[in-house]
Amino acid sequence: MLMQTHEARLDALRKELAKRDLAGFVVPISDEHLSEYVGAYAQRLAWLTGFGGSAGSAAILRDKAAMFVDGRYTLQVREQVSGQLYEYKSVPDDSMADWLADNVSEGARIGFDPWLHTRGWAKKVAKKLESVGAELVPVEGNPIDAVWADQPEPSPAPAYVQDDKLAGRTSAEKRAEIACWLNDNKLDAVVISALDSVAWTLNIRGADVDHTPVALSYLVVQEDGTADWFIAPEKVPAEVAQALGNAVRIRPRDEFSAAFAELAGKRVAADPARSVAAIFERLDEVGAEIVSEDDPTVLPKAIKTPAEQQGHRDAQARDGVAIAQFLHWLSVEAPKGEVDELSAAAKLHDLRRANSDLLRDLSFDTISGAGPNGASPHYRVDEDSNRKLEPNSVYLVDSGGQYPDGTTDITRTIWVGPGSPPDEVCDRFTRVLKGHIALDMQTFPPGTPGSALDTLARQHLWMAGVDYAHGTGHGVGAFLGVHEGPQRIAKGRGAQAGTDQPLMAGMILSNEPGYYKANEYGIRIENLVLVEPREIAGAEGEWLGFETLTFAPIDRTLVKRDLLSPAEIAWWNDYHAKVREIIAPQLSGEVLEWLEEACQPL
Amino acid sequence: MLMQTHEARLDALRKELAKRDLAGFVVPISDEHLSEYVGAYAQRLAWLTGFGGSAGSAAILRDKAAMFVDGRYTLQVREQVSGQLYEYKSVPDDSMADWLADNVSEGARIGFDPWLHTRGWAKKVAKKLESVGAELVPVEGNPIDAVWADQPEPSPAPAYVQDDKLAGRTSAEKRAEIACWLNDNKLDAVVISALDSVAWTLNIRGADVDHTPVALSYLVVQEDGTADWFIAPEKVPAEVAQALGNAVRIRPRDEFSAAFAELAGKRVAADPARSVAAIFERLDEVGAEIVSEDDPTVLPKAIKTPAEQQGHRDAQARDGVAIAQFLHWLSVEAPKGEVDELSAAAKLHDLRRANSDLLRDLSFDTISGAGPNGASPHYRVDEDSNRKLEPNSVYLVDSGGQYPDGTTDITRTIWVGPGSPPDEVCDRFTRVLKGHIALDMQTFPPGTPGSALDTLARQHLWMAGVDYAHGTGHGVGAFLGVHEGPQRIAKGRGAQAGTDQPLMAGMILSNEPGYYKANEYGIRIENLVLVEPREIAGAEGEWLGFETLTFAPIDRTLVKRDLLSPAEIAWWNDYHAKVREIIAPQLSGEVLEWLEEACQPL
Repeated sequence: MLMQTHEARLDALRKELAKRDLAGFVVPISDEHLSEYVGAYAQRLAWLTGFGGSAGSAAILRDKAAMFVDGRYTLQVREQVSGQLYEYKSVPDDSMADWLADNVSEGARIGFDPWLHTRGWAKKVAKKLESVGAELVPVEGNPIDAVWADQPEPSPAPAYVQDDKLAGRTSAEKRAEIACWLNDNKLDAVVISALDSVAWTLNIRGADVDHTPVALSYLVVQEDGTADWFIAPEKVPAEVAQALGNAVRIRPRDEFSAAFAELAGKRVAADPARSVAAIFERLDEVGAEIVSEDDPTVLPKAIKTPAEQQGHRDAQARDGVAIAQFLHWLSVEAPKGEVDELSAAAKLHDLRRANSDLLRDLSFDTISGAGPNGASPHYRVDEDSNRKLEPNSVYLVDSGGQYPDGTTDITRTIWVGPGSPPDEVCDRFTRVLKGHIALDMQTFPPGTPGSALDTLARQHLWMAGVDYAHGTGHGVGAFLGVHEGPQRIAKGRGAQAGTDQPLMAGMILSNEPGYYKANEYGIRIENLVLVEPREIAGAEGEWLGFETLTFAPIDRTLVKRDLLSPAEIAWWNDYHAKVREIIAPQLSGEVLEWLEEACQPL
Repeated sequence: MLMQTHEARLDALRKELAKRDLAGFVVPISDEHLSEYVGAYAQRLAWLTGFGGSAGSAAILRDKAAMFVDGRYTLQVREQVSGQLYEYKSVPDDSMADWLADNVSEGARIGFDPWLHTRGWAKKVAKKLESVGAELVPVEGNPIDAVWADQPEPSPAPAYVQDDKLAGRTSAEKRAEIACWLNDNKLDAVVISALDSVAWTLNIRGADVDHTPVALSYLVVQEDGTADWFIAPEKVPAEVAQALGNAVRIRPRDEFSAAFAELAGKRVAADPARSVAAIFERLDEVGAEIVSEDDPTVLPKAIKTPAEQQGHRDAQARDGVAIAQFLHWLSVEAPKGEVDELSAAAKLHDLRRANSDLLRDLSFDTISGAGPNGASPHYRVDEDSNRKLEPNSVYLVDSGGQYPDGTTDITRTIWVGPGSPPDEVCDRFTRVLKGHIALDMQTFPPGTPGSALDTLARQHLWMAGVDYAHGTGHGVGAFLGVHEGPQRIAKGRGAQAGTDQPLMAGMILSNEPGYYKANEYGIRIENLVLVEPREIAGAEGEWLGFETLTFAPIDRTLVKRDLLSPAEIAWWNDYHAKVREIIAPQLSGEVLEWLEEACQPL
């Protein structure tokens, strides 16, 4: 069989739309759980258009179509998606709702798959279309699925048990807590559709999407603490069923929608940001009383149990060995000029695998950025973009591993010798470092949100008239999503949720200021930190601080020592003493020698 | 005639309420312009209850009454207001709406004066009362006015012209700008009722309320740039009328409400936060289309013209002389043990007056806090609370002047010798100083709101486990309110408005971190700063920074030099060199000698 071209695919979709009397259709990158990473079966945008980025959407009309991507993908979309078939649109400046309104005729019916969008999105677009006399229409069955002949099946990977010892709390305890919350709010049940929330609540994991160890399923928790788990039955081994016990009823995922009939007349909570529009529609249809509430697992999931905290420390100590081996390898090989972004990322993956059979996955696609490629904060290397690490250039590597006891995420920026780095690079690197240290060292009162700490990480860059266009820190899961809410350290007025969430003891966040010089280089220094109660002599009230979780040398070649204060130098020396204490006993030979050298006082 | 007691006054009010078939009445500290400072005629709460604080309210029912004050006034309310007549309630923990709902019977009619409250307040309380079957009713004529025999008349002070040279922009230009805004928003007129907004728009000033040089009046600006100014005619001298010209129609203030009939059928803007409920009611009654918009003068008023910026510099240089004279006087007299809070405040006022006949008023009641009294950030000294400045104690003085070219506001904290200050006081003082310096030195990108800078002022206190319970900076007017919106530097999640407003070049703010040890002492260091564009070598894009406006020595006795970084010491030395440069040429003799000494490098 001949490969379908993207033009042929678009034609096929348009014929399907015509059959359904639709003037257009909207194609996001999303699944029925609004997941950050979606399974192969849900990669409809990539199949249709060829676009390989992680965020974007397309709007298809009968005679035109447009691709909507953000600034990260401005170049990539032009390389991967045909300009003959699609207009390129840039969000947030261009809005799909506006584009549709400008291009549809009165009476047009524009389809959307209510299992792939929030209700809020649908309302907003519907209103805009109404204003020009058109209509947004939910489809029954995604029209792309109808024309995608070789669409992959959803993953058959079995779910498995996350040991209560690692979770630090049993599923029964978690469900009892949710039941308390339901009773406090006079609710009968809550629909949980975010995959990590389901996994956390049940103490189960899976392998259905890349990088996040979750199983495709839905959960409905009842006010008595029992639950209905909707999952393909063949994915549930006996030991999972046994671990869950009778209080969790295992039911086919196909029946999820039909089972809503059981919620008729009940007060049912669902999270408008984490449940798709179809769930709200169905609840409405069956006559349930819908109460919009934040997913009740989000905050308890973010506050790690002592077992999860210890797991994170263990995972980081393990992961740090692979990082040290990699940084040593890089120090030997890179200056020779033959390492490239792909081979470096592969080497790091190999070392993580070789270092521990506990590695389950990478926690995200490694960002391996040489020189100018490092200047794209979310750069993803492929065969086309792959660059050599040039001698005397900057290399940025952001990567992480999924281990049963913890999820890691670390960024290091390396000077590829053999020469010395330019003064400007050292200046910027040192300012990023100073911001990283300021945030790591800061103590703060309970109630402080991430937005109040963000500037600490930027202040030294701002003094030089430069900044970075991303947040400073995101929450991190416990063998779950590497990006996890509700907390976030970032500027407070942006579109990013979570910056108003007070940081609380037990939360884990990244600390990752950076600096990016377009077309030249990128710098980022990232460790994970754990919010902990902090005793301070003479303090009034309670205080919080950060325990650093990530241990790997920071490249001293790039440090301008005279820009550092005595307190910052002490931080550096203490940090590297701890790196040595934790990592050195796990190393030997040349790598150990390299680490000892890298951990000398500054 | 015998003085009416507060009990008799309360009785008289209750009889008046019974006559009007009201079960209760709400008494705020407010005027028809929602002013921060109100005229004597509007001091209804003080007349009724004896309360002398600047914020609070009372709820009067037939058989009980309650006073609602915040934490600043917990002690004061118990001293000034009879516990026999009033329950003491603490906001924000206790809400008046809740208290009313708990204490009224079904069918009760609770009165409020719609000229003293926002529509938002009225809606909230009305809803709460409805929930218990009671009703919130606007009164015609304030019932307190009916029983307050010797109620002062509104001030007869004449309005006067604020020179266009000081304002830097004519009233015609300002009204043309408002007219543009009206046309852009398809509006016919805007009601401006905030007194400083009226004064700014017309380039007039007045003397009708304490501390803010404004005239009691309303303004309606029309889409053609003409305006109707409602003010008692006897308060408008010929030169004011002449300066305003024909485009401003001067009309009796009494006719304001009746004149709304002219707005029937028009699209009229009013600011729900700055116009009272009665204005919205009247607009509704006459059939105007009300459009809720922020007062269009607030942002342009906050962005000072070059003339106003220069005026501020001049006013500060003048004010700094009185401050230097005062600090010198204090250094000589205070250690003798005979200076008290009242005499110190009076001396400072005398020096300001003697120093310049341009002083029009103080910009607020001087906060003169010795020892433990300094620990109340908003402390107001009176005969009862007055304390001596004890030898070897901390003294805090926060004060400001109103000059035609600028409004000043400065706080200094002084160690009253002759001994040396304790280590803890120096530690706290130095941390406050480090926060003050960090904020003063910080450069930041356009778009940065005050909430993003607030933590810079707190960071060093937080490291010691302490904080201060007030904002870090407020906007300041140009010969207008010492507290002026829309910008504010404070924690972002509080009730205070303005922390999301980006700081813009031309805005003036205070920089006033502090530390307060209950029952012992208070520390605050306050200068005013001007947001200015900042050139930074190698910067990407545009940058902003602060120009320091206030020049007076900071008490070096309280500084722990070894807690300061080289950059902070350089700031101190540069700042004091500038103090000397600006203030020394205006001094002579002992005061000059004292200043020279105080301005030596650290």
